[in-house]
Amino acid sequence: MIPRYSRPQMVDIWSPETKFRIWFEIEAHGCDALADLGVIPKEAASTIWDKGNAATFDIERIDAIERETKHDVIAFLTHLAEIVGEPARFVHQGFTSSDVLDTTLNVQLMRATDLLLEDMDKLLAAIKKRAEEHKYTVCIGRSHGIHAEPVTFGLKMAQAYAEFDRCKARLLAAREEIATCAISGAVGTFANIDPAVEEHVAKSMGLKPEPVSTQVIPRDRHAMYFAVLGVIASSIERLATEVRHLQRTEVLEAEEFFSKGQKGSSAMPHKRNPVLTENLTGLSRIVRAFVTPALENVALWHERDISHSSVERMAAPDATVTLDFALARLTNVVENLVVYPERMLANMDALGGLVHSQRVLLALTQAGVSREDSYRLVQRNAMKVWDAYQQRLPNPPVFLDELLADDDVRKALSEEEIRDKFDIGYHTKHVDTIFDRVFG
Amino acid sequence: MIPRYSRPQMVDIWSPETKFRIWFEIEAHGCDALADLGVIPKEAASTIWDKGNAATFDIERIDAIERETKHDVIAFLTHLAEIVGEPARFVHQGFTSSDVLDTTLNVQLMRATDLLLEDMDKLLAAIKKRAEEHKYTVCIGRSHGIHAEPVTFGLKMAQAYAEFDRCKARLLAAREEIATCAISGAVGTFANIDPAVEEHVAKSMGLKPEPVSTQVIPRDRHAMYFAVLGVIASSIERLATEVRHLQRTEVLEAEEFFSKGQKGSSAMPHKRNPVLTENLTGLSRIVRAFVTPALENVALWHERDISHSSVERMAAPDATVTLDFALARLTNVVENLVVYPERMLANMDALGGLVHSQRVLLALTQAGVSREDSYRLVQRNAMKVWDAYQQRLPNPPVFLDELLADDDVRKALSEEEIRDKFDIGYHTKHVDTIFDRVFG
Amino acid sequence: MIPRYSRPQMVDIWSPETKFRIWFEIEAHGCDALADLGVIPKEAASTIWDKGNAATFDIERIDAIERETKHDVIAFLTHLAEIVGEPARFVHQGFTSSDVLDTTLNVQLMRATDLLLEDMDKLLAAIKKRAEEHKYTVCIGRSHGIHAEPVTFGLKMAQAYAEFDRCKARLLAAREEIATCAISGAVGTFANIDPAVEEHVAKSMGLKPEPVSTQVIPRDRHAMYFAVLGVIASSIERLATEVRHLQRTEVLEAEEFFSKGQKGSSAMPHKRNPVLTENLTGLSRIVRAFVTPALENVALWHERDISHSSVERMAAPDATVTLDFALARLTNVVENLVVYPERMLANMDALGGLVHSQRVLLALTQAGVSREDSYRLVQRNAMKVWDAYQQRLPNPPVFLDELLADDDVRKALSEEEIRDKFDIGYHTKHVDTIFDRVFG
Amino acid sequence: MIPRYSRPQMVDIWSPETKFRIWFEIEAHGCDALADLGVIPKEAASTIWDKGNAATFDIERIDAIERETKHDVIAFLTHLAEIVGEPARFVHQGFTSSDVLDTTLNVQLMRATDLLLEDMDKLLAAIKKRAEEHKYTVCIGRSHGIHAEPVTFGLKMAQAYAEFDRCKARLLAAREEIATCAISGAVGTFANIDPAVEEHVAKSMGLKPEPVSTQVIPRDRHAMYFAVLGVIASSIERLATEVRHLQRTEVLEAEEFFSKGQKGSSAMPHKRNPVLTENLTGLSRIVRAFVTPALENVALWHERDISHSSVERMAAPDATVTLDFALARLTNVVENLVVYPERMLANMDALGGLVHSQRVLLALTQAGVSREDSYRLVQRNAMKVWDAYQQRLPNPPVFLDELLADDDVRKALSEEEIRDKFDIGYHTKHVDTIFDRVFG
Repeated sequence: MIPRYSRPQMVDIWSPETKFRIWFEIEAHGCDALADLGVIPKEAASTIWDKGNAATFDIERIDAIERETKHDVIAFLTHLAEIVGEPARFVHQGFTSSDVLDTTLNVQLMRATDLLLEDMDKLLAAIKKRAEEHKYTVCIGRSHGIHAEPVTFGLKMAQAYAEFDRCKARLLAAREEIATCAISGAVGTFANIDPAVEEHVAKSMGLKPEPVSTQVIPRDRHAMYFAVLGVIASSIERLATEVRHLQRTEVLEAEEFFSKGQKGSSAMPHKRNPVLTENLTGLSRIVRAFVTPALENVALWHERDISHSSVERMAAPDATVTLDFALARLTNVVENLVVYPERMLANMDALGGLVHSQRVLLALTQAGVSREDSYRLVQRNAMKVWDAYQQRLPNPPVFLDELLADDDVRKALSEEEIRDKFDIGYHTKHVDTIFDRVFG
Repeated sequence: MIPRYSRPQMVDIWSPETKFRIWFEIEAHGCDALADLGVIPKEAASTIWDKGNAATFDIERIDAIERETKHDVIAFLTHLAEIVGEPARFVHQGFTSSDVLDTTLNVQLMRATDLLLEDMDKLLAAIKKRAEEHKYTVCIGRSHGIHAEPVTFGLKMAQAYAEFDRCKARLLAAREEIATCAISGAVGTFANIDPAVEEHVAKSMGLKPEPVSTQVIPRDRHAMYFAVLGVIASSIERLATEVRHLQRTEVLEAEEFFSKGQKGSSAMPHKRNPVLTENLTGLSRIVRAFVTPALENVALWHERDISHSSVERMAAPDATVTLDFALARLTNVVENLVVYPERMLANMDALGGLVHSQRVLLALTQAGVSREDSYRLVQRNAMKVWDAYQQRLPNPPVFLDELLADDDVRKALSEEEIRDKFDIGYHTKHVDTIFDRVFG
Repeated sequence: MIPRYSRPQMVDIWSPETKFRIWFEIEAHGCDALADLGVIPKEAASTIWDKGNAATFDIERIDAIERETKHDVIAFLTHLAEIVGEPARFVHQGFTSSDVLDTTLNVQLMRATDLLLEDMDKLLAAIKKRAEEHKYTVCIGRSHGIHAEPVTFGLKMAQAYAEFDRCKARLLAAREEIATCAISGAVGTFANIDPAVEEHVAKSMGLKPEPVSTQVIPRDRHAMYFAVLGVIASSIERLATEVRHLQRTEVLEAEEFFSKGQKGSSAMPHKRNPVLTENLTGLSRIVRAFVTPALENVALWHERDISHSSVERMAAPDATVTLDFALARLTNVVENLVVYPERMLANMDALGGLVHSQRVLLALTQAGVSREDSYRLVQRNAMKVWDAYQQRLPNPPVFLDELLADDDVRKALSEEEIRDKFDIGYHTKHVDTIFDRVFG
Repeated sequence: MIPRYSRPQMVDIWSPETKFRIWFEIEAHGCDALADLGVIPKEAASTIWDKGNAATFDIERIDAIERETKHDVIAFLTHLAEIVGEPARFVHQGFTSSDVLDTTLNVQLMRATDLLLEDMDKLLAAIKKRAEEHKYTVCIGRSHGIHAEPVTFGLKMAQAYAEFDRCKARLLAAREEIATCAISGAVGTFANIDPAVEEHVAKSMGLKPEPVSTQVIPRDRHAMYFAVLGVIASSIERLATEVRHLQRTEVLEAEEFFSKGQKGSSAMPHKRNPVLTENLTGLSRIVRAFVTPALENVALWHERDISHSSVERMAAPDATVTLDFALARLTNVVENLVVYPERMLANMDALGGLVHSQRVLLALTQAGVSREDSYRLVQRNAMKVWDAYQQRLPNPPVFLDELLADDDVRKALSEEEIRDKFDIGYHTKHVDTIFDRVFG
């Protein structure tokens, strides 16, 4: 998490201020529940809320106490006692520190996920808009980086939409995974705290009680969470890679938006680099990097050890802040992507119509020519076109013209039949079906 | 995937025989759909089914053809034509090879998942049985590897049950992720194949149509799938680590079952090593290893490249076969784990009752002693016990006796009040609540 | 490790036959040393060598014994006793199983590394040959996928050479890491075996004694080893990616060799896909996948646990076999890569000479024009050329002509001065320097 | 990189101040070289040094310029021009931004490595001291967590020393990898800059010229670098895990130092948790996390893309700062580790001398008893001892006494012969040999 790749709202979730505020809320909700159970006086709970709500927690003071006690929760509670006064002794009764820490982490992750879900909705909206805009903008489909058959730019966007829609569903599931609360005391047996407290705090904080915690909330939940972030990062990389490819000088079918004053190079006016999507490629690697440590965090010793803690102190902010930034940046790239439909057609046509060769081949076989002969006929015309393209010859031959001029081909197929095979519409007839599946 | 860590049923899913059989079924179901659409004769489809069902595909023959054509699907289709005869020309019409390959991979993953789900059910049943058996078998809970407060062995099992129950839910979700079918032709536009064919094949194979494929089924699905296997592996590692810890010589609260003739060491009769759970720890690392390549597989170029293929040829069998083996081995470990309740109590008591110190401290404060004084009183008695334990003194002092003999303590608390704090039942009173949450 | 991506010589290293032969050699060399120390009779050692050398180890028999004893080394020793007869009782004296297993693994890794080093030498030779062949084959250099300034194809090869030369040095260092031998007995104290035995076996097997083993050879060595394989895999990916980019339809500056009969597509004659380099991209991911488990293998418990074993049984063959295959495949790709120098020039010229804009700009400033004015003058001519390129206009303007026709430019620069800036040789004048650095 | 796990000296290396100072030095050394070549006036170079050395770079001002230009190097150069005045136009001539950025990264990594090497030396010194102190402090060696045969605590330390000594050698090699300089201009051809400039800057900054750069320094170097950090992290985890195991309540052979006032728990005086080594376990995971993205950074497109940049902006500081902190923390743990030799003996003796069973067995066979009978004799005595241990019986039988009282044993061995097998010195006789190997 560095300022360059951070947005304030997500950073705020991970600030000390937010953390201490959540700690306070958990403790105060706990007091409410303890008061309901008659364990502590109702007025105490009420005072704790009033004074705590009115106060600003002094982070430097808390840090100073921690330097002494070497215990962060105790440092906070000491500071809280300074604010709350006498009723402070009713705070944290029967709690263990992990109750506060683990529940807080999950609240933070839940809030982070809510931001990521907003990001995702914006990204989906942006993709959808471009998909509809370019539903029938024909471009060449490429397998292995090689021209194959026509698709549309809208289809590319529809694919991305479907993929990020799945990512959204995964994110919702990941939110469920980590939206749990543990207030179960040392080693999680509720020996010194009633399960009703956990239920009350959980409900108040928008969480569910963890069915069985062992002082800690089990880390398979967090492993799953970070794995989902990693998958989303990979999907970001996929779309970013598509843009990078489309912007290559030789392809140039789309470009990241360039602001007016922006200069790609001090000398070469054409130098507009896909730096945003290259950056997204790198950010994806960083988000994915936290999947493995999260998986390694699962096997804590016995009821708990604390090896997970340092990992999470770094990974939780870093992964969520970076992913939030990346989703927003990708949305921006999609919204402002400059698409060149003419260039798309020109690229496709650069092969002189070769993309239609399969249909001509099939038509020949349907007209009674053997498959072997058909292939030979198509190929001898195709190769002329291909060789010219390969050598970038000026005024290269056009595949349709070659076929029309080939007597053997014409014996089997009429001019109209041949021309019919060069219909781009043939390839887009099911675009609507696919759009219905994705957006319907 | 090596024989040592493989079970035949899962291995079979990844055999060439199974693969070619699925290829055939996809092609044959496709013929049915094409026949329904009137594209090919119904009798052709019928003949294809009859002859294909009757035949055994000759893998050596297919391999020989592939060596020539360097294309596995064409090799198979050529062999199929040898079996089916003339109607073979109606096979694969409008299909692209990836339609067959990707759909087959997903069928295999789906079947593999079904086996894993069976494994998971057996593991859950085994854990539940041991949980109920040892619901109230008290043992010390350990945080940081250090004695904390009492738990029960049943609670340890309940935690494992809840964790693997989550893993089962994740596995079901992962099955949904990959149970899709693509029969959409080159670059996925359905230009040469009606979407109805995809729908029919999908339904026949137990899959859902992929909303938008681009020659390939998008790999974010598989990334998510392998990530879930990785999380399950980590949960296996957690339970395996627990057993390894419990079997340590100094702890010895449980042991992996040793068959009668088995020898841990040729010389030392006590040498029974937790080799199964150590092995599970290693296998977990292997299953997790495939998460990263699966994440790297997502960002294919444009409509597809084939970089994912070699990864999946190795990772899909290796990850599922290894996880299947690991789940079965863990089930075996749990079912046959030898638990030593007396040793558990002995270990807990080895600290002379120190685990109750917190309750005595609280009782003193409730009896009006200041917190500082209470701590001092408890500590001075506790330290005698602790020092004796640390030095492994013979006939070490017992915490209860020391407290009863401490006049300052007795001024505040009666013998009965003190004895009451040494009640183990206090710590297990909510075991039932937790069991209800987990198994209820 | 699957047959598709395996070569026999490397596979042989990991066969049971090879493994048992190394086990035998270690035991027999151990007997020699024990005989020298007078611990066992010299004739016994001699008989063991004679009978063992003459025998073929019966793997099925060994497996059968292991099924009984559940111990692989004991199974082998039992079988060896069947072969050797009475002197067998002198075998393995004071050894622990890990002495044999760990030393054998290192012998196998050392031999695997020797094969990889041969692979690397062949790859380096192939790259060097192409580098020299195309030392001055000019092509456009691309940053961010965008045309920048000219380089040569030979420079691309020189870069690859330097990178793989580093990889070779790393591989040599990795060989040093794992070429160690441990014959130190249970927990590594030499209590029951003289260090002289270890020294003798080490020397005989081409290894160095492990300074301090703890029953096992420390796994930081193997972690480093697999990390080096991972780095090599990434370098393979880099060169593979370069080829994939160069073969893109729009770029087409080079192509993987296509054998005469090979068909990229049944219908489209131009469809020659870079499937080998795509495959190499995937194989790289697999080799890299083993880095993390190898890192996780380091922290064994106390003097040893056996969690590393299952990881290595799979990772060691898989990583080395796959890397061997990948290096050989890459060598083949490089040797047979079809390079199109004319197309390279054509691509570079497609931008109408824009790649020289920086030099014109600098010349203008040197001629006294302010930097701002210079930029404006260059840009207004460049943009005409660029726009025509972007729109793929027929007969696009040529940058040199535009500049020559611009009065403001001509006020500062003569025709000769301008033409001089379009000299490709300017960009290649230090190719020789770089070649000297790399190949000198 | 968060304050909690950071040390100021390493953090400083990654500060904006340090970065801009290195940028300046690279540019200024470049000017010297250009002046020597006669490309720019000597006085200009001299003025640049004087004014630059005297100035403090204003980071806020640079940031403000970058917000406008969206280019960090241009922003710095603009600010430098404000400081230097007219001669600023001679700065950066023929440089490309990456020349500055990549060379700076390597300078920072080199300096970071120098700090890590200092850390490593301190750690090695600390380990060596403890090794010598406890050279003959006997403790039980454990394989699989189970008592095996005696070792010494010094041997444990010697193993750690040898391992970190290897890590130091790897770190030195990693330093070599990244200590290179590139001043080769756009796409690395030296078209606009003489190689002599690179050589001068390299020498001045303590680097070697990169033999062939392609605008960027190749990232296989950095991949190797981060891999080495990952291996070191794993070695840290290994030693940390050893301490965690030794501190377990049931083992308690060593403890992390506890400062006087420190409290592990507010209630339980025995609660001293190995939190430092648990923390080191987590930090290791974080350092290792950056290995995979560094491997993914290698395959940049063509002459360069910028996807590596965001990864390195986060990973380079995070990995080095965290590792620096971890090495220092581990050194502190080792230096202050409280070792309990008596407890070590007590733990070993808790099994009533069973650790000597192998030697008794061997002695019986040497005395003419068949191996089978010997095993039976040893086992029947050992099992009594073992069962008592397993059940934690009071006054458990002692193995030596049982053997001495066994008539069948005594028929073969005299009391003296039996007692002789219980000599701990037998196991430590080669400690000196091993120490010589490691420290000699």
